[in-house]
Amino acid sequence: MKKISVILFNDYTSLDALGPAEVFARMKETYQLDYFSVIGGTVKSSINTEIVTKKMSEIEENGILLIPGGFGTRKLSEDYDFASTLKKAAEKSEFVLTVCTGSALLSKTGLLDGKKATSNKIAWDWVISQNEKVCWQKKARWCVDGKFYTSSGVSAGIDMALGFISDMHGRKKALECARGIEYIWNSDKNKDDFC
Amino acid sequence: MKKISVILFNDYTSLDALGPAEVFARMKETYQLDYFSVIGGTVKSSINTEIVTKKMSEIEENGILLIPGGFGTRKLSEDYDFASTLKKAAEKSEFVLTVCTGSALLSKTGLLDGKKATSNKIAWDWVISQNEKVCWQKKARWCVDGKFYTSSGVSAGIDMALGFISDMHGRKKALECARGIEYIWNSDKNKDDFC
Repeated sequence: MKKISVILFNDYTSLDALGPAEVFARMKETYQLDYFSVIGGTVKSSINTEIVTKKMSEIEENGILLIPGGFGTRKLSEDYDFASTLKKAAEKSEFVLTVCTGSALLSKTGLLDGKKATSNKIAWDWVISQNEKVCWQKKARWCVDGKFYTSSGVSAGIDMALGFISDMHGRKKALECARGIEYIWNSDKNKDDFC
Repeated sequence: MKKISVILFNDYTSLDALGPAEVFARMKETYQLDYFSVIGGTVKSSINTEIVTKKMSEIEENGILLIPGGFGTRKLSEDYDFASTLKKAAEKSEFVLTVCTGSALLSKTGLLDGKKATSNKIAWDWVISQNEKVCWQKKARWCVDGKFYTSSGVSAGIDMALGFISDMHGRKKALECARGIEYIWNSDKNKDDFC
C-alpha cells in the first residue's frame, strides 16, 4: 500500500484536497489516504467542514504528499515554521502533488526552485510573487517536473490525479477511475481552458 | 442566508457531498453549509476522512438538503429509522438534492413516488430496485421534479449544483461559480455520457 498524506490547514479549499483524494480512493488496493496538519486535531475548510487530522511529524517516508490551496494559503505562506515542516515532509516523500495555490506554499520550501510548476489562474500574480526562482508555467492544466506534480485551480486537481494514475498505472486504469466517478477527464495537461 | 444541510453517514462517497458543497461555497453571501448525521459526532467517508457533524434533528426548516451516495447506502437503505429521520428532514426542506445512490435513500422515504429521478449508472439496477414507484430516468446527468434535484454519479453532483444555481440565480452566476473552481460545466441535464 502506498500512503497518500493530505495536508490540511485552516481555510483550505476542500475540493483541492478531496477531489484528488476521491480519485485515489478508486484504487483502494493501492493507495491509503490519511489527513495531516501541523499540530493535528480538527481543521476547518472553506466549506465549513471540520476534519480530524494527525500531526505532520507522523507522516511516513516514501509516500505521496498532497497539498491543497485556498484562501488560508495567504497567511500560511508567511509562516516559516510551516514551510520548514512542509519541507521535511516533502523531502521524505516519493512524490509531491499540489493543487491550486498549494504550489505557492510548496514554493516557500525552496524545493520548486528551477522547476516547472503551475497554479490557479485567478490567483496567478500572487502565486508567482511568492517565489520568482520557480519556472512558473501559466498555460497548463497541470505540470510534472521530477517528483513534483502541480495543478491549476480546484477541479484541475482531479485531472492531475488521473494523470498521475495514468503515469503510474497506465491510461486504461486512469479512464477506469474517471468512469468510476462519472467524470470527463481532461487528459491533456497542456490543455488549459482557464488561462 | 439559505442553509444547506449536508447529510453524512458511514462510508458515503466524499465527492458526492463535498463537490456540490464546494460549488455552493462560491456563493458565501447566499449559502451556509452545515453537516449532519443521525446521532451527530464524527462520520467516516469512503476516502478515510472523519468529519464532525451535528444531529439531523437540529436541521432547520426551509433550507436545502443535500444527500450523497456511496457504498454506505447499501446497508442504510434497509434502516427504517434512518428513512423516517430523513423523511422529516426532507419534508421541512425547501429543496432536496441527491447525488449518486443518495436518490435510493431518498426513495425509501416515499417522497419520490411518482416523481422523475436519476442515479449513478454503475449501481443502476440496485437503485431502481429500491422503490419501483419512482419514475427512474436512466439517461440524465440530473433530473428536476418539483423540489427534488437528483443527479447521476459523483461528479454529476457538481453539474447539478451548478444547474441549481442557474435555476435560482441565472446562468451567468452558475458560469461564474464554475470558473471559480476551474470546472468545465456540463450544463445540459439531459446530456449523460455515462448512460
